[in-house]
Amino acid sequence: MSRFFSAKYASLQAYTPGEQPRDAQYVKLNTNESPFPPAPAVTAAAAQEAERLNLYCDPACTELCAAAARQYGLLPENVLPVNGSDEILYFAFMAFGDERHAFTFPDVTYGFYPVYANVNHVPAHIIPLREDFTIDPADYCNLGENIVIPNPNAPTGIALSVSQIEDIVRTNSDAVVIIDEAYVDFGAESCVPLLGRYDNLLVTQTFSKSRSLAGARLGFGLGNPALIQDLNTVKYSVNPYNVNRMTQAAGIAAMQSGDYYRQNCLTIVQNREYTTQALAEMGFETLPSKANFIFTQCPDIPGGALYQALRERGVLVRHFDQKRTENFIRVTIGSRPQMDAFLDAVREIRKERGI
Amino acid sequence: MSRFFSAKYASLQAYTPGEQPRDAQYVKLNTNESPFPPAPAVTAAAAQEAERLNLYCDPACTELCAAAARQYGLLPENVLPVNGSDEILYFAFMAFGDERHAFTFPDVTYGFYPVYANVNHVPAHIIPLREDFTIDPADYCNLGENIVIPNPNAPTGIALSVSQIEDIVRTNSDAVVIIDEAYVDFGAESCVPLLGRYDNLLVTQTFSKSRSLAGARLGFGLGNPALIQDLNTVKYSVNPYNVNRMTQAAGIAAMQSGDYYRQNCLTIVQNREYTTQALAEMGFETLPSKANFIFTQCPDIPGGALYQALRERGVLVRHFDQKRTENFIRVTIGSRPQMDAFLDAVREIRKERGI
Repeated sequence: MSRFFSAKYASLQAYTPGEQPRDAQYVKLNTNESPFPPAPAVTAAAAQEAERLNLYCDPACTELCAAAARQYGLLPENVLPVNGSDEILYFAFMAFGDERHAFTFPDVTYGFYPVYANVNHVPAHIIPLREDFTIDPADYCNLGENIVIPNPNAPTGIALSVSQIEDIVRTNSDAVVIIDEAYVDFGAESCVPLLGRYDNLLVTQTFSKSRSLAGARLGFGLGNPALIQDLNTVKYSVNPYNVNRMTQAAGIAAMQSGDYYRQNCLTIVQNREYTTQALAEMGFETLPSKANFIFTQCPDIPGGALYQALRERGVLVRHFDQKRTENFIRVTIGSRPQMDAFLDAVREIRKERGI
Repeated sequence: MSRFFSAKYASLQAYTPGEQPRDAQYVKLNTNESPFPPAPAVTAAAAQEAERLNLYCDPACTELCAAAARQYGLLPENVLPVNGSDEILYFAFMAFGDERHAFTFPDVTYGFYPVYANVNHVPAHIIPLREDFTIDPADYCNLGENIVIPNPNAPTGIALSVSQIEDIVRTNSDAVVIIDEAYVDFGAESCVPLLGRYDNLLVTQTFSKSRSLAGARLGFGLGNPALIQDLNTVKYSVNPYNVNRMTQAAGIAAMQSGDYYRQNCLTIVQNREYTTQALAEMGFETLPSKANFIFTQCPDIPGGALYQALRERGVLVRHFDQKRTENFIRVTIGSRPQMDAFLDAVREIRKERGI
């Protein structure tokens, strides 16, 4: 820390992203990326736009907003494209949180929420998941506080139904409820259809997972025009040209390649069921996932040891070293060969330990 | 504004970017873009990276930092790549400003500084330029406050010398001095060589102008490792994957295409002198610019009217409707045909008005 760093951030603990090893020797199942490349039309659109990089991108993302509005059945004024969905979450904590307006979220969830609370000096109200790692919707009803919940939740993969979420949104009408749908395309229900009925609902989505665009950085905030206008005020006070030209073009092309991505999502769901079953045969307990990852524990090997043993065998998964999650590993669902490599490594580790 | 917007932003006035008309019918001289496309190697590198967008970008930008360090004669720990240099300025106001640590900057300068002060609740200490629109370095010595100065300044285009800036940095050793070198490649001197001697200096640069990458969004913060570490703490608390894969690749390729960009900068300088002289022959007064734009006034036509008349003839320039600048227009220096189109339009407007 330099002697100039503001005291207001003295206790700030930044977020730690999953490892992005650059030697590329790993079966990489640690950051919930898609194993499938972007659709050919996406690559072509981005490459074409690369020839015009001397010109600024459209800060209003006019065409991208129009395309997203068509896809989601909304109007362009319901849509704010951002530089990855982390950015819309940051903007939302900025816009709607302050010292008197807390944000509520589960104890086991996306690790960036406490960081966004901290950096914006917003109190964090943390509600434990139930013993079985599910969210009890009743815990979130009638709170009168801003709320952010991923659906499905991460790293558990467990989803709420739209009607359960609607109860939360309806009973907190004087606060903003953010439903973070980063993983919604792998089997959960989207809350976008609720947007017309609730002015306090913000749905966030990302093209990093189901749309194979993690490296392009594209996310969306979807909500009532007044909410989107506030988030735009923040965007135009932070970084107006936040979504670059190539990514805007890639996003539009991705929305025109729906069949390709739907097929990929189906494959991921099949691979998830295949992997979960193979692990069950080895005695693993896996939470019921609707995401492109599973959260699973081996009865005989602690999570940290299993993470490390897999790493030594060239398979990267993620381990969260906190009390409630330390026995688990989070495994991204990749291609069938990737999952077989993971399962083979698990079998080897168990054999070596005489299990 | 929604009923949920935090009262802390009640008076926030967002930044207004220059128009980005999407019908592309204009001679566009309003946002200081380069008229030259990116180097062929840059387009190729970005296009190649588009095939791997399913994988996250490296949040540490390891290769890009190494390339920038080589180019600037620094170490990688002196470098922080960002999503356009606006982002590093935002991070710096966050990191080093607070209610007790103001930022000082000129009255006529980049319009985003007051917005960054406002959004971060940092007091702004504004010092008027001299009558001739130059910065008096003495005004900034021994202030004991954070300072941000563009060199050359915008929209005036007037540069300070490195020794003048060194006086400011040396006499404010207990505060951060940011030199915003967005336009430094068109004739001013860079302060990067001072970095080894001052731990309170942050130099910001962008690849939007001289490197023809406005649409890719790439900027850099350059400074002492402790300063860069603080800015990284902020980055990892806001948006760790802020520079996408294609832009990282484009940036590296741009640094390998130095001859191409140096030649383009020389052409811009020639076109600047050509345009300035042609305007002088019509009685315009143009401030002495070291940037890829000029700030010029016609003795007979107010700035707003000239802006509007040019717009009607398909030439977009920028007009800043404040007291000290209202008689001026800011004209980006583009290609020779673009400048001839601008000059022809000016001649027509004058002729029509019988001047």
